[in-house]
Amino acid sequence: MELDVARLRADTPGCTNRVHLNNAGAGLMAEPVLRAMLEHLQLEAEIGGYEAAEAQEAAIADLYAATAALLNCRPENIAVAPSATDAYSRALSSIPFATGDVILTTRDDYASNQFAFLSLRKRFGVEVVQAPVLREGGVDVDAMAALMRARRPRLVAATHIPTNSGLVQPVVEIGRHCRELELLYIVDACQSVGQYPLDMKELGCDFLTATYRKFLRGPRGPGFLYVSDRILESDYEPLFIDVRGARWVEPDMYSHAATASRFEAWESSYAALIGCAVATRYALSVGIERIARRTPCLGARLRRGLEEIEPVRVLDQGREQCAIVTFTIDDRAGEAFKQQLDARGINSSLGFREWALLDLTSKGVDWYLRLSPHYYNTEEEVGIVLGAIAELSRATAG
Amino acid sequence: MELDVARLRADTPGCTNRVHLNNAGAGLMAEPVLRAMLEHLQLEAEIGGYEAAEAQEAAIADLYAATAALLNCRPENIAVAPSATDAYSRALSSIPFATGDVILTTRDDYASNQFAFLSLRKRFGVEVVQAPVLREGGVDVDAMAALMRARRPRLVAATHIPTNSGLVQPVVEIGRHCRELELLYIVDACQSVGQYPLDMKELGCDFLTATYRKFLRGPRGPGFLYVSDRILESDYEPLFIDVRGARWVEPDMYSHAATASRFEAWESSYAALIGCAVATRYALSVGIERIARRTPCLGARLRRGLEEIEPVRVLDQGREQCAIVTFTIDDRAGEAFKQQLDARGINSSLGFREWALLDLTSKGVDWYLRLSPHYYNTEEEVGIVLGAIAELSRATAG
Repeated sequence: MELDVARLRADTPGCTNRVHLNNAGAGLMAEPVLRAMLEHLQLEAEIGGYEAAEAQEAAIADLYAATAALLNCRPENIAVAPSATDAYSRALSSIPFATGDVILTTRDDYASNQFAFLSLRKRFGVEVVQAPVLREGGVDVDAMAALMRARRPRLVAATHIPTNSGLVQPVVEIGRHCRELELLYIVDACQSVGQYPLDMKELGCDFLTATYRKFLRGPRGPGFLYVSDRILESDYEPLFIDVRGARWVEPDMYSHAATASRFEAWESSYAALIGCAVATRYALSVGIERIARRTPCLGARLRRGLEEIEPVRVLDQGREQCAIVTFTIDDRAGEAFKQQLDARGINSSLGFREWALLDLTSKGVDWYLRLSPHYYNTEEEVGIVLGAIAELSRATAG
Repeated sequence: MELDVARLRADTPGCTNRVHLNNAGAGLMAEPVLRAMLEHLQLEAEIGGYEAAEAQEAAIADLYAATAALLNCRPENIAVAPSATDAYSRALSSIPFATGDVILTTRDDYASNQFAFLSLRKRFGVEVVQAPVLREGGVDVDAMAALMRARRPRLVAATHIPTNSGLVQPVVEIGRHCRELELLYIVDACQSVGQYPLDMKELGCDFLTATYRKFLRGPRGPGFLYVSDRILESDYEPLFIDVRGARWVEPDMYSHAATASRFEAWESSYAALIGCAVATRYALSVGIERIARRTPCLGARLRRGLEEIEPVRVLDQGREQCAIVTFTIDDRAGEAFKQQLDARGINSSLGFREWALLDLTSKGVDWYLRLSPHYYNTEEEVGIVLGAIAELSRATAG
């Protein structure tokens, strides 16, 4: 059974106002997500912030159950975080890095993750190694596996889908090597969760982080951290553990929680968490497999169309490509081009070299425009956007 | 000019439903705070999450200006964080602790802060020293200053008002010694911001953290980190710096921002941030000096009344006491007592020994009930609550 796109659009207030091709920034919230958040904030104002959280305990608990259902794991493996990057930091902070430790990553990992690795290098003398890239784009898994065997990294890190291109990295294959060699493995799934199925049993990672706001269509803010049973059974705990994740048992000793809550903070925006729970249930009811059949196809359709427009240079590489489409136009100012799309009600995203220095330097571009459809976008909208881009690139070409 | 309490209550939806004495948990949001958040979430649903943040850029920027006005510093000194504890962790993470370093703190610092110190001890061999307490409660500043001279701590940490008692710590006097000895000084002001004026020039601290949700009456979630110019001019940066706080300048190098944004995360719940901005402006317009004249007095009135109720044991200590009032009743179950208050529409908070192990062990109690009025509470409400507690403690005494 295919998706009832008309019904799903009717559920999405933003569809009437914009051609929203910025799902890799933040997806449009469905009406039930918005409503749940508004109601919770109103309840907070009416009875108090703690009192409202207590009254909505079941809705908040469902965030863990829904996220676990999404990932094929237990709710106890899920820690909720104020953002995906915060979740990533908490995971990294649990690893007691020492001088000479190697972090093996890719050239397409998210900038903030790369910054964290470079900071660990500066602070603790960790060595950061980026695995080589295939000619067609994407990490060379065989070369990466050879580095795993040769260097025995303290941590292997991969971003499933970079924020700045349509590339899909082979995180399952990387995971297979990590498991074989018993290496710690962290996956950043910010751009893939909600777009593709993710199965923790298949991935075999120790940590996985993602956000609710992109292809899961949750509110801005929260992300989550999946923590494997292997880690939970070990002594790993975040460097800054708080009352949510530990008990004060003796004057100079705390004991951490048995579940992933040891990675959580006490304080949260509960309205946002409730929104995330409803968004995750919504995605599950739409069906991740069905989303995965439609969403990347809209990306591919857009990409094919762009390739036919003369001054446009499509930047996406890799064997497998997703719903994120990136392009540049030489000798043009990205800012002005984006504003022209804005003026036509088309939401896009502009990125710069410093946000993905390795990838964009190798592609030789200073800026890129990113278009990221989701299942509620239509083939007609793709046509409108292609028409607009063709017109705009001709109009200002002279 | 005194406060127009009736008008301020009319602005506060929760006042009609509850006797809210849980401001030390989360204050009741004023109507303009709620409205700004609802409108922003609606805008996000209508035009997209990034697009809404761009449209509301000025409202978001005002959070920095308003917070700076509150603290008598520049907006560039303010980093916004998903929670105060997160802000505290980010500040701590910027200090490259080494074996043998001393963290000098008090016995009344917040549990999560104490956990962070203990974790730093476990990970890096830091020594945690708690300054002695005066007979009447509160830190012995002279003894603390002597420890500063003798041990030359890497960091001095003080919580202005603990979450679990009415104590007000002499953070200005502690700061004077820190400045004289040029010691790094961090203050946790979660329970004092919005209740008392805070002047960064007077405090002389390097870092100060607080939340918006308590006496500032903002939404649940966000907190902030004040960072002194001294720190900003130095190389201090958080261990996990992200694209918000740094630029990727060379393949293996980033450069951090000149402002406190180097401590920030890219992603936030913008609806919550806008709520925080409106709440801070609201507090400024009510007037912090005027709030400080009223709020602690309501606490004192409540405390005096409780002292006259036979089985009640008031637990607050210290020379100066604030709007937080704590008590216990021996041989009673805290949970049941709190539920009886809930049933009468009185919002309170129940705490346990493990949340403030040092203080509550010395007081010899397993649980405490916390009542925390704010300026919009009335003398009449204080009377109602005292009546209820007197009745409930008699009723179940037998």
